[in-house]
Amino acid sequence: MNEFELIRIASRIFSTDRQDVIVGPGEDDCAVVEINGKNIVLTADVLHEKTDFPEGIKAEEIGHLSLAVNLSDLAAMGAKPLYFIHTVTLSRKWINEFEDMMKGMKKLAERYGVAVVGGDIDFGDELSIAGFAVGVADRFVTQSGAKPGEFVCLTGPLGKAQLSLEQLFSGMSREKIAYPESLFTPEPRVREGMEVAKHAGAMTDISDSLAISLHLIAEKSRVGIEIRSDLLPLDHLTPYVGEEKALELFLYSGGDYELVYTSNECTHGFVIGRVVEEKGVRIDGEEIEFRGYMHKPD
Amino acid sequence: MNEFELIRIASRIFSTDRQDVIVGPGEDDCAVVEINGKNIVLTADVLHEKTDFPEGIKAEEIGHLSLAVNLSDLAAMGAKPLYFIHTVTLSRKWINEFEDMMKGMKKLAERYGVAVVGGDIDFGDELSIAGFAVGVADRFVTQSGAKPGEFVCLTGPLGKAQLSLEQLFSGMSREKIAYPESLFTPEPRVREGMEVAKHAGAMTDISDSLAISLHLIAEKSRVGIEIRSDLLPLDHLTPYVGEEKALELFLYSGGDYELVYTSNECTHGFVIGRVVEEKGVRIDGEEIEFRGYMHKPD
Repeated sequence: MNEFELIRIASRIFSTDRQDVIVGPGEDDCAVVEINGKNIVLTADVLHEKTDFPEGIKAEEIGHLSLAVNLSDLAAMGAKPLYFIHTVTLSRKWINEFEDMMKGMKKLAERYGVAVVGGDIDFGDELSIAGFAVGVADRFVTQSGAKPGEFVCLTGPLGKAQLSLEQLFSGMSREKIAYPESLFTPEPRVREGMEVAKHAGAMTDISDSLAISLHLIAEKSRVGIEIRSDLLPLDHLTPYVGEEKALELFLYSGGDYELVYTSNECTHGFVIGRVVEEKGVRIDGEEIEFRGYMHKPD
Repeated sequence: MNEFELIRIASRIFSTDRQDVIVGPGEDDCAVVEINGKNIVLTADVLHEKTDFPEGIKAEEIGHLSLAVNLSDLAAMGAKPLYFIHTVTLSRKWINEFEDMMKGMKKLAERYGVAVVGGDIDFGDELSIAGFAVGVADRFVTQSGAKPGEFVCLTGPLGKAQLSLEQLFSGMSREKIAYPESLFTPEPRVREGMEVAKHAGAMTDISDSLAISLHLIAEKSRVGIEIRSDLLPLDHLTPYVGEEKALELFLYSGGDYELVYTSNECTHGFVIGRVVEEKGVRIDGEEIEFRGYMHKPD
């Protein structure tokens, strides 16, 4: 069983017809509930040392990443982030780095007006941080609102994180890799998400890959998506890899904290294609597979 | 560095003077923030297989515990629980038990009107579940509002969980131990917490031990607490252990999901002592130590 199948099981068990649950379990990037007439947006993400933190990462960057991944989920729905709570499981080697970890988290929290209001700390064999973010949104954007005729827009170029990770694993030092900030301190698109939410039909962030994000929007919106390869900027990748590998990184790798959305105008970022009636996700007429990754190359 | 020292570091880093943060990081059982004029109560807790789940625990019970520990935190402030989000890290041996785990969580959630609105799932070496609960409270109760003259009240007898755990580790089967439900499916005092919140001065749950809970109330409220041993019921323990060990379990062991509160009337549970002006926490005039545990005996 993979993650998607498990999420389906949980979504079925926890499905609810409560009026105050507007976006329920497994439906989108975040849950949305109504408290006192206000849309409250909730999300949770957990990161583990072995699977989510590149070797050589600094404590401050771990704190940054743990918050950033949750802020990116809120941004994906256009919510304004307000509060963050976390649980930290410390392994022995990180105990003395705890303060720096929290300082990295604080620095990012301040940039976006997020109050870190609490947490739980315990000890274990592997460092992990689970984060929970609370936001608000007058208008929020789901993955299911794309309409034929809209542009497909992307807030920034993709593939930097995975390229940098692969360079790191090929033996390059973290000072020499192409985009260290994409890997260690990616910037969630909080402001862009809030502004785009005023007009977007559908939106999500790039968690696993552009391919998976596009498939989610197409399937949930019951539309098709046509991407044009000549609209995908690859200049940031081609100094390091060939054109084919660059396109592979752009379409199928994760770790970049950009947003993809559909709208009649790409106010933030650039156009990469169109929403169409004919189901499926294609690039230059050819099918884009449902796959993505952000991991160490085998 | 222990958990309390680390919490102090985090609380210092994240301290805020924002008007909408009413109870901030490290101050109490939960954080309280104000959204649209409403008190929103937030809490997070993480449980790990090795440290928090007794051997022989069933998947349904793991789901129950993961929610219960968070509901107990909300109850400790008198909040009405509304929403729950969780992150599950599955180890190989638990993947096929995931559905039962979620069913156990759902059963408890339904009992208290909690909507489980989402989560994150990944895979790792050790099973762990981090939970995040959201509640509301017109009047919430902190650990810092105890006033001299109030009674100290307890919602139920203590020591059952640790007694049962020690029986389990002495080789007894889970069918034979004294209070399996205290260990595997403890009931958070959600309704009691909400009702007591109407009149209590201070309140908290028994996380680590009654001793630690009383110390927290006494220190944060700048008062003293006098407990009378003849008011502590030990009948549920003395069939299994001697009187001295029974008192030790009652005062210094955790795992029982009861609430301790101060008030002019013990509407739920029973009186165990009084709040006094003279600082410190005493039983029959002798000091109660600041210590607690809930673990396998060495």
